[in-house]
Amino acid sequence: MTADAGLPRRKFWGWGLEGEAATREERDRLLSALCLELGVSELQAVPPPRVEEFSLPAPRLRAPATLAPILTDDPRQRLVHAYGKSLPDSVRMFRRHAPAPPDLVAFPRDESDVAALLEWLDGESAAAIPFGGGSSVCGGVEPAVGEAYAAAVSVDLERLDRVLEVDAASLAARIQAGTRGPALEAQLKEHGLTLRHFPQSFEHSTLGGWIATRSGGHFATLATHIDDLVESLRAVTPSGVLETRRLPASGAGPSPERLLLGSEGTLGVITEAWMRVRRRPRFRAGASVRFAGFSRGADAVRALAQSELYPANCRLIDAEEAEAAGAGGGGALLVLGFESADHPLEPWLQRALEIVRDFGGSIAGGSGGSSAEAGGGRSGQSSSSERSTREDAAGAWRRAFLRAPYFRELLTPRGVISDTFETAVTWSGFETLYQGVLERMDRAFREITGRPGRLTCRFTHVYPDGPAPYFSFRVHSTLDAMLEQWREIKAAANEAVVSLGGTITHHHAVGRDHRPGWEQERSPLFGEALRAAKAALDPHGILNPGVLIEPSDRSVGVTGALAP
Amino acid sequence: MTADAGLPRRKFWGWGLEGEAATREERDRLLSALCLELGVSELQAVPPPRVEEFSLPAPRLRAPATLAPILTDDPRQRLVHAYGKSLPDSVRMFRRHAPAPPDLVAFPRDESDVAALLEWLDGESAAAIPFGGGSSVCGGVEPAVGEAYAAAVSVDLERLDRVLEVDAASLAARIQAGTRGPALEAQLKEHGLTLRHFPQSFEHSTLGGWIATRSGGHFATLATHIDDLVESLRAVTPSGVLETRRLPASGAGPSPERLLLGSEGTLGVITEAWMRVRRRPRFRAGASVRFAGFSRGADAVRALAQSELYPANCRLIDAEEAEAAGAGGGGALLVLGFESADHPLEPWLQRALEIVRDFGGSIAGGSGGSSAEAGGGRSGQSSSSERSTREDAAGAWRRAFLRAPYFRELLTPRGVISDTFETAVTWSGFETLYQGVLERMDRAFREITGRPGRLTCRFTHVYPDGPAPYFSFRVHSTLDAMLEQWREIKAAANEAVVSLGGTITHHHAVGRDHRPGWEQERSPLFGEALRAAKAALDPHGILNPGVLIEPSDRSVGVTGALAP
Repeated sequence: MTADAGLPRRKFWGWGLEGEAATREERDRLLSALCLELGVSELQAVPPPRVEEFSLPAPRLRAPATLAPILTDDPRQRLVHAYGKSLPDSVRMFRRHAPAPPDLVAFPRDESDVAALLEWLDGESAAAIPFGGGSSVCGGVEPAVGEAYAAAVSVDLERLDRVLEVDAASLAARIQAGTRGPALEAQLKEHGLTLRHFPQSFEHSTLGGWIATRSGGHFATLATHIDDLVESLRAVTPSGVLETRRLPASGAGPSPERLLLGSEGTLGVITEAWMRVRRRPRFRAGASVRFAGFSRGADAVRALAQSELYPANCRLIDAEEAEAAGAGGGGALLVLGFESADHPLEPWLQRALEIVRDFGGSIAGGSGGSSAEAGGGRSGQSSSSERSTREDAAGAWRRAFLRAPYFRELLTPRGVISDTFETAVTWSGFETLYQGVLERMDRAFREITGRPGRLTCRFTHVYPDGPAPYFSFRVHSTLDAMLEQWREIKAAANEAVVSLGGTITHHHAVGRDHRPGWEQERSPLFGEALRAAKAALDPHGILNPGVLIEPSDRSVGVTGALAP
Repeated sequence: MTADAGLPRRKFWGWGLEGEAATREERDRLLSALCLELGVSELQAVPPPRVEEFSLPAPRLRAPATLAPILTDDPRQRLVHAYGKSLPDSVRMFRRHAPAPPDLVAFPRDESDVAALLEWLDGESAAAIPFGGGSSVCGGVEPAVGEAYAAAVSVDLERLDRVLEVDAASLAARIQAGTRGPALEAQLKEHGLTLRHFPQSFEHSTLGGWIATRSGGHFATLATHIDDLVESLRAVTPSGVLETRRLPASGAGPSPERLLLGSEGTLGVITEAWMRVRRRPRFRAGASVRFAGFSRGADAVRALAQSELYPANCRLIDAEEAEAAGAGGGGALLVLGFESADHPLEPWLQRALEIVRDFGGSIAGGSGGSSAEAGGGRSGQSSSSERSTREDAAGAWRRAFLRAPYFRELLTPRGVISDTFETAVTWSGFETLYQGVLERMDRAFREITGRPGRLTCRFTHVYPDGPAPYFSFRVHSTLDAMLEQWREIKAAANEAVVSLGGTITHHHAVGRDHRPGWEQERSPLFGEALRAAKAALDPHGILNPGVLIEPSDRSVGVTGALAP
């Protein structure tokens, strides 16, 4: 079979493509820090797994002749599609444990292939697992569908990777769902446009995945989620194609886009969308600001979020996280930035700096200053003399942010539990949630692993009515013990954010791992309504069973990473 | 029965309360214009109807003792709740034609009353018609439910009229659904806060109605719809209470608020919501700008909408409409305004004026200038010498806008078909839609009434990817002929906006009158999903049958104003 001919070879046990990895320098710095934490001079690591080390179950389904060109049972591809990229996914790969990979992997070439696949699978009582970049960190692409299904087939949209149409007047572009971040931006750049949606997974996640999971992107205010950038979309369901109309806005009935946004492959396979794009920014203004403590910084960020100045970047990072990213310097760090394709931003920045000073913020290395990008026609403000200092701090943090996913394959084989969880909460509820999470997680790390953990916090996005706190943690364990310990830690984290008033996820989606938390957070009646809507679109429940929506009429035997 | 004791007496045949009407001056100006158009010196008018002129059918349902205190069969209240405030509603009242008023009207005092009502009506196979301010212009509150229901009861939330709680840190307030605009703003003002949502119906519409119909408000950009201001809500359904969690944002599954937003009383009775409020604006800057023609003005507005300057006001009004509102002066008029509680806005306005000048706009009466409101602590820019001229043009138009609903009771009894319809469309589709609407409606007026009509256009809201054009029209008819002629004109307007790429409604909701257009606009599969969701929340289909969702298992005999 050659269904995957010509496609890049993706790492099945780690982030990115085969051959991609942390640099020598990144690796050395990380391992030194780990050794220091443990007081040892070296850490033993299990080598990465090879395909031959897995004995995969035989595929339970055979491709019909018409679909054979787009289906494969290649063991490597089955492993690539067996898990997402969460910590338990990594652990199970390093343990050479993948008992339920997809029986087959499909690479549809167009929407009609997707429709033909769903029709076939519906008839076979086989599950379809929509697969974008496979970067899920909550069990969203795992084919753990249980015995009620005859088989499970991953539907990888990698071949649907083009920008099909650009409407320059309306600043909109029609883009195929399988398009990954870099390819999407490269194609838009030819038109002087950008989607400007940069989740941490940007390099290896897709437009369709972003829409299906309501991903959070570049902008700290306003268009934080992909939701706001979707003008219309098309999805293939077992009942037919659902297409929404291209409209800048409507007040006609409940929004159809909003039903598909966050549906995580359970209501349909998103094949393309008209996206709101923008002209590439030519003006920037920014500053780094230091605060004595995180809570004081949070007060300043609240004032900024309520100012209607709408900074593009407004990321508050606690002292420990800034230090770890090489942007240390004492206190919490606020990375503040404005950007525009239309106008210089000095008045915006100056007012923002007045606000942060009112809350005791000190501008690290000067006031930043506006800058026009190279190639911009309009003249920007000149940069301040200390601009490079600011860019060093902010830039160092951002580089570390984008590289972080590559570190997991260094951490897992050394028994280090390193993970993140995130939420959003009102400003009035924030301090209680923040202190509660710190206390509960500190206790959880000690009780579950017998060791202290390190937990850091930042705000990824901020709203007038509350922030989106993002927690990162690390605690030492062993490859043998870490999966079970992670489960207990994850349960504690889920319980903490939801019981303290937050949402189970601001932008990591629900998948399998957050389903219990989501069911706690949302009204049971909304669950009923959603299940009913699913039954109308997917009568036999073949779409991503076990994810997001609690199965009602089929018992799902395997529930993913959370189940022992 | 005294269920309505102490409540204001609402006009059943016109806008507002009994005793409220157009001023003598407004009346004289309007009637003069009408006479001029017809070339007559006087227009005969049918007098307003009196309750005694209607012979209402006997109520088919008797209030049980427990609910008697909140139910009434008072004929005046039944007439108040028989229709909304659309043109056909007005005509039918002036014709003394109200064959299907609600059997009873309920005035629940709290959420438990609402729950008890729904439980009783569900058991009686009677329809429940949620009623806020009753300002629907699309048949959204008409109890035209047909013979499949034992009766119909309007559920008027007027007594749920309080701001229950304010979270000043998060800029949010918990508000009961029956609270009308002025009462809502007055209660928030005590806290220095405002919702700042001012639909044209503001005085006589409610928060719950705004949410149920996705109303459009004050802001021309960003928070245009009430959707963006809803933090969480509670709704009573026949299956129980659906409450969503207070969160600034979430990425967990499809948004539950977005299912209820625009549900028009078909999924539940919204009883309260946590709303995002803001500090009252202290700084303003604005200008009036003239353009040679509407299309040229549209180009400038597109540039403004794509500039990310986010004006609060950016209403483009065509020359004829500006003239009619007493803000004439040649050419299209752009009313441009910025406002902020945080900072002076001169840089925002100056850049916006650069943009409009690039498109040939001339600043009518100077550049406007910033102004700090009385009582604002921070000093604003001083006003320009010609600011009063600008405020005259913009102010005149705004006053006319808010007074317009009072004119219907002058127009209908004189046989004048005066109505509006509105849409939203991409920028690339706008010119085709605009020219197409002008041509088709001109032909429709002549063919249907034998006379030319006058049709004007403005943009009420604008987005980076398209405007929301709002059309007003007037054509002379007679009280006897106008309902049937309106039906044909309305059908032509519906057909025009949808077939030319727009939405059937940007902020007037779907109701009964826009249902055919909405069914044309949206995917049938989305309709199936919505119907399924409704069945989960409202298994016997008692909530507002015939509105929004095409009935599936009950035949609805009466379909409102569109049916002969």
